[in-house]
Amino acid sequence: MAYRPELSAASAVLTREVEVLDERGRASIIAIPAERPLTVYVDKRELVTLMTLGGAPEALTLGYLRNQRLVRSLDDIVSVHVDWDVDAVAVKTRHGIADVEERTSKKVVTTGCGQGSVFGGLMDDVDKIRLPDAARLHQSTLYGIVDTIRTHQSIYKQAGSVHGCALFSARGELLYFVEDVGRHNAVDAIAGLMWLEGMDGADKIFYTTGRLTSEMVIKGAQMGIPFLLSRSGTTQMGHMVAERIGMTLLARCTGKHFLLLTGKERLVFAPELAEVLRYA
Amino acid sequence: MAYRPELSAASAVLTREVEVLDERGRASIIAIPAERPLTVYVDKRELVTLMTLGGAPEALTLGYLRNQRLVRSLDDIVSVHVDWDVDAVAVKTRHGIADVEERTSKKVVTTGCGQGSVFGGLMDDVDKIRLPDAARLHQSTLYGIVDTIRTHQSIYKQAGSVHGCALFSARGELLYFVEDVGRHNAVDAIAGLMWLEGMDGADKIFYTTGRLTSEMVIKGAQMGIPFLLSRSGTTQMGHMVAERIGMTLLARCTGKHFLLLTGKERLVFAPELAEVLRYA
Repeated sequence: MAYRPELSAASAVLTREVEVLDERGRASIIAIPAERPLTVYVDKRELVTLMTLGGAPEALTLGYLRNQRLVRSLDDIVSVHVDWDVDAVAVKTRHGIADVEERTSKKVVTTGCGQGSVFGGLMDDVDKIRLPDAARLHQSTLYGIVDTIRTHQSIYKQAGSVHGCALFSARGELLYFVEDVGRHNAVDAIAGLMWLEGMDGADKIFYTTGRLTSEMVIKGAQMGIPFLLSRSGTTQMGHMVAERIGMTLLARCTGKHFLLLTGKERLVFAPELAEVLRYA
Repeated sequence: MAYRPELSAASAVLTREVEVLDERGRASIIAIPAERPLTVYVDKRELVTLMTLGGAPEALTLGYLRNQRLVRSLDDIVSVHVDWDVDAVAVKTRHGIADVEERTSKKVVTTGCGQGSVFGGLMDDVDKIRLPDAARLHQSTLYGIVDTIRTHQSIYKQAGSVHGCALFSARGELLYFVEDVGRHNAVDAIAGLMWLEGMDGADKIFYTTGRLTSEMVIKGAQMGIPFLLSRSGTTQMGHMVAERIGMTLLARCTGKHFLLLTGKERLVFAPELAEVLRYA
């Protein structure tokens, strides 16, 4: 069995009720998503404060350390303990983080809907990433994924104002679904879950409700995932980075519609579906 | 006349065309928003890299320095020069930024749809902020604002995937409208424009297409603006901070609908409109 660090299981309450007045002055109670600080301490040293929904704080912490490339292997992590009484998570590592001062000093404030800050240098490794050329996504699998998301129970449906990310198998089975107030937290949490399971991204499909910005594309690539789907659009940098690393980007995925932006050879158009769509 | 630093006027091309395939395999050309790095140098020292649409880079830089409280007065800024050939902006100050190392070392990675990273300590000053109790927003003015945004020319309508922020006078006149790939950039750019004009926020109304997270509420409060409107929702921290500082938050503002969340006494419900709405 794969190594697994010692983890707390500190999922928090995810919504809060507040009283509002509508346009006719009528009072009602609505749910809004929780948002709480989680300060990450690595070997008792304060690293960063993440603002999070709080649904998967251990996976978020692990994925953050992974995606920021601060910890290279899960084996280096001894334990991850979340304590909501003090809004903190204590990470114990085997060997510490080398050059932590230097590696966290360069700030890039990114565009993402969400977490947004990456410590510098993420782009540095981008050109080394190779995504599998042979991976294919069938149009019908894509539609299945969009439909799974549409019908999935979510905080978004209850309270709005969160972003969701999901990981699917090549056959379109839902593996993970994580929501957070910041979409980058949701991505990081999925990276953390994949790390814990020793899961490879090469035969997976990643879905996000958020925009396909450069940071999202880079994070997807770091996880080795060739397909990135969104119900939103993309930006110039997201498009450019995806083209450069050969990732397949699909934007505006809703119902039977989508826009295939890059890595177009990986999508298998289904002629029979095209026929159906012609009369839709 | 008020002091004004020397500024470049380096607005960039805001969209790019890319070829896409739709669900029937048909090729077409769509516009996507530009996204480019802008590295801020203050007195030749690298401070941060902002990912931006590039429409108002000088105002963005000024607003960033203002909202991060790195520069307290516009008088301290000698010049702001953007050079897209090197994706950089050079800021010259009169006296430098005191304790810049220390003041930019604490990271809070926030939830915002957009820029997202604030240097720590933003919350520290929150309790000192006083917003004008007597300010009022009439329901009909609110509807006028929502309608102005709806009909305004925008990159969003052309290319999607950007957030917009706008500043309105108490009578509902549009003063500024800024879009950016990160909504925090759009807020910061408006803060920069207000700074340049010596404009007070006490009798203004702020509109954003993005969610009302804690960071948005804090930035609005720093500009002294009592009203924050959004077509999106809010989060627990956004709601909590707004309640604490007495800001009026209005979420889900579309058409004739809205949800009044906090600072409820400042909204003037119009009985005649309520009557119209009853039959709408």
